[in-house]
Amino acid sequence: MMSSLDSPHLTTAHAGPLEHLEAHILSHQALIESWLREQWLISPPPFYASVDLRNAGFKLAPVDTNLFPAGFNNLNPAFIPLCVQAIQAAIDRGKLCARRILIIPENHTRNLYYLESVARLQDIIQKSGYEVRIGSMLPDLHSAQQIELPSGSHVLLEPVVRQGNQISVGKFTPCLVLLNNDLSSGTPPLLDGIQQRVIPLLQLGWATRLKSVHFHHYRQVAMEFARQVEIDPWLIDPLFRNCGEINFMKKEGESCLIDNVEALLANIRQKYAEYDVPHRPFVIVKADAGSYGMGIMTVHSGEEIRALNRKQRVKMSATKEQPVGKVIMQEGVYTFETWEQAQAVAEPVVYMIDKYVVGGFYRVHTERGINENLNAPGMKFEPLAFADSCITPDQRMAPDACPNRFYAYGVIARLALLAAARECKEILDKKPAVAPLALVS
Amino acid sequence: MMSSLDSPHLTTAHAGPLEHLEAHILSHQALIESWLREQWLISPPPFYASVDLRNAGFKLAPVDTNLFPAGFNNLNPAFIPLCVQAIQAAIDRGKLCARRILIIPENHTRNLYYLESVARLQDIIQKSGYEVRIGSMLPDLHSAQQIELPSGSHVLLEPVVRQGNQISVGKFTPCLVLLNNDLSSGTPPLLDGIQQRVIPLLQLGWATRLKSVHFHHYRQVAMEFARQVEIDPWLIDPLFRNCGEINFMKKEGESCLIDNVEALLANIRQKYAEYDVPHRPFVIVKADAGSYGMGIMTVHSGEEIRALNRKQRVKMSATKEQPVGKVIMQEGVYTFETWEQAQAVAEPVVYMIDKYVVGGFYRVHTERGINENLNAPGMKFEPLAFADSCITPDQRMAPDACPNRFYAYGVIARLALLAAARECKEILDKKPAVAPLALVS
Repeated sequence: MMSSLDSPHLTTAHAGPLEHLEAHILSHQALIESWLREQWLISPPPFYASVDLRNAGFKLAPVDTNLFPAGFNNLNPAFIPLCVQAIQAAIDRGKLCARRILIIPENHTRNLYYLESVARLQDIIQKSGYEVRIGSMLPDLHSAQQIELPSGSHVLLEPVVRQGNQISVGKFTPCLVLLNNDLSSGTPPLLDGIQQRVIPLLQLGWATRLKSVHFHHYRQVAMEFARQVEIDPWLIDPLFRNCGEINFMKKEGESCLIDNVEALLANIRQKYAEYDVPHRPFVIVKADAGSYGMGIMTVHSGEEIRALNRKQRVKMSATKEQPVGKVIMQEGVYTFETWEQAQAVAEPVVYMIDKYVVGGFYRVHTERGINENLNAPGMKFEPLAFADSCITPDQRMAPDACPNRFYAYGVIARLALLAAARECKEILDKKPAVAPLALVS
Repeated sequence: MMSSLDSPHLTTAHAGPLEHLEAHILSHQALIESWLREQWLISPPPFYASVDLRNAGFKLAPVDTNLFPAGFNNLNPAFIPLCVQAIQAAIDRGKLCARRILIIPENHTRNLYYLESVARLQDIIQKSGYEVRIGSMLPDLHSAQQIELPSGSHVLLEPVVRQGNQISVGKFTPCLVLLNNDLSSGTPPLLDGIQQRVIPLLQLGWATRLKSVHFHHYRQVAMEFARQVEIDPWLIDPLFRNCGEINFMKKEGESCLIDNVEALLANIRQKYAEYDVPHRPFVIVKADAGSYGMGIMTVHSGEEIRALNRKQRVKMSATKEQPVGKVIMQEGVYTFETWEQAQAVAEPVVYMIDKYVVGGFYRVHTERGINENLNAPGMKFEPLAFADSCITPDQRMAPDACPNRFYAYGVIARLALLAAARECKEILDKKPAVAPLALVS
């Protein structure tokens, strides 16, 4: 659509099995959409989400689902109308609000890229026909602060004030509070028990949400979906295991970690043998609850964990105040999609508002390997907006043609969205499905 | 967005008052959207519609609202995703159908441009995740006929078969029947009383629907809207009057027509004086029920009607079988928007699916005057797709900048959509609001 935004190309010899997957998705389009429609009636989608995908050629899977998405500024501006329309549908469906919306962003005032995303989000919701202000929870913000952004736009951060059970900024009292803050430190007293509707659910903040719960739901979703489309669920589902509390510094819980990593590697090895994948299996070890200040580690054997040096252990530990954390071990999915122009690894991120896929972009990184996490804290990437929408599959084109590949991305991302929807439903129903994976407070 | 699609520019000196209108619309955006949201809860929008607008610089008004829109092929392909998403939202909102949709088009098999629109509509609904077939009511179609189109795509017309209270094509039994046929000759027996859901309502076909009923509702909508936005409703509402049965050949009903044309011209003259408009008032005379084979006439005085020659009278008469018809006289709204590149008059047509504005195009015509109807039967025009969406107003730009002008178009078009929604509601409630304008059977 926009010629300046060339799409990455799969350069691996292993495009075969993914084409197989893409072909299956394309030929089952009406069935998939009909199945998803039924699912949304049972578990309504969260307000918004972004999903990180990994495309290994032989496998396409989500590795992270963010319910407080940033990066709206990385989307193709041509698809802003799609976001505007989706916001209108989302707010309508949820019967959410008549007029005024307050966005509560992260407290990163120095991260201008993040603020560009907040500005874009505000703009989209304004275009949808609402009054939108930005309420900051920065403890030292006592008056409105305007921040100019590199794009030429700006954000006006206003201190959130609570009076009784209502919050407001200045004389603006919202009927809806939209969190774009992942509440890593738990529910702030400012928001606790307010009468205004808050979305997403406060319980979905990273202080309580566990990746292992999400991927437990995703496993179930992937199984159900795979049955419909007649594929092996492994082609879309990263294997995972989780451990209880780990203290990397004191080496507490380490044997559980090592045993599970070995078991996971054995499982991956078996699947690689089944599909003739000539690559070395690897595992990603990361915090189960949010990023939590904990590093993300790529390991190829349990031995690597035993051999961690002090520096690596510090990196894997949570903050000084809380050196212990739960971890999740996830099957590493190779990144075989590259952007030829920059000879760089490219990883898709898909954006959804309500049940609608509204766009996406690639994280393009020249300095990282195909088996490393491209969303590690502090890492840099170049965003490359998707050139086409994810909702215009074309049966007359090849299964791996751009509109069809983006459609496949949109389908897999929506499966992760459905897993998140089931997380929400579980919270609302207050009936944890599986005891060991239950949400902790 | 697409540089090849330059937008027409207003070249009149009378841009002033319209800029005034556009500025009012832009500055009241949140209020307008909130008001419209409330209105859709009271009167749900029809499934789809296109609205012809006239932009006179000093006035922006709808002149025709089509509930069986063609011309989807004239929309900017960049906005197909917007159509796809709107179809999903529309079908969801109406809880319309699980899987299979049958489009019933007009019987114009020789009009390839029309069939291009049908093919585009089928494509959009397929992309939305439904199985879609095209069921033709052509009496002499006994087996499926594939028609190749200039664009390279094709349509497969299949004969509609009725069994009991169900219709189908081949082995495909739809759960939803989407009419793209304006039913000018009334409800066909094929569709009468079938158990499948049919949209739009059969009663909205042009055999029963009257333009005067629509514009009666529109007048009310315009008044309510104008109060909100604090403008004179005349700036968005074409004055109109209607007569009973007219027989142009026998000159029956002619005096009613002449008197009403004179009265209408007097009203327009008064408004032109109020706004210092230096142009000559004119009136459009057209059939009240659909096009009905009746011509469309531009008149500047009642005398012109009395002086019609035989050829003109034949043109204004309905078909031979039915030489008599109701007429509506509508304030002529000058077309002052021109496409500089072609020095041609350009008239906007706005498309909506459910309550969502999904795009539009200009009818560009080099051979017609600024006070003639550009949608006369058999006329030719060049379509020029809107370059921007109609849903991304930009408060930082001038009120007449492209995104803001398109937004204003989208607002006025939705007011006409709301009038149509009230028509539907009246039919469903079976309580005609005003006796003389009641729907006739």
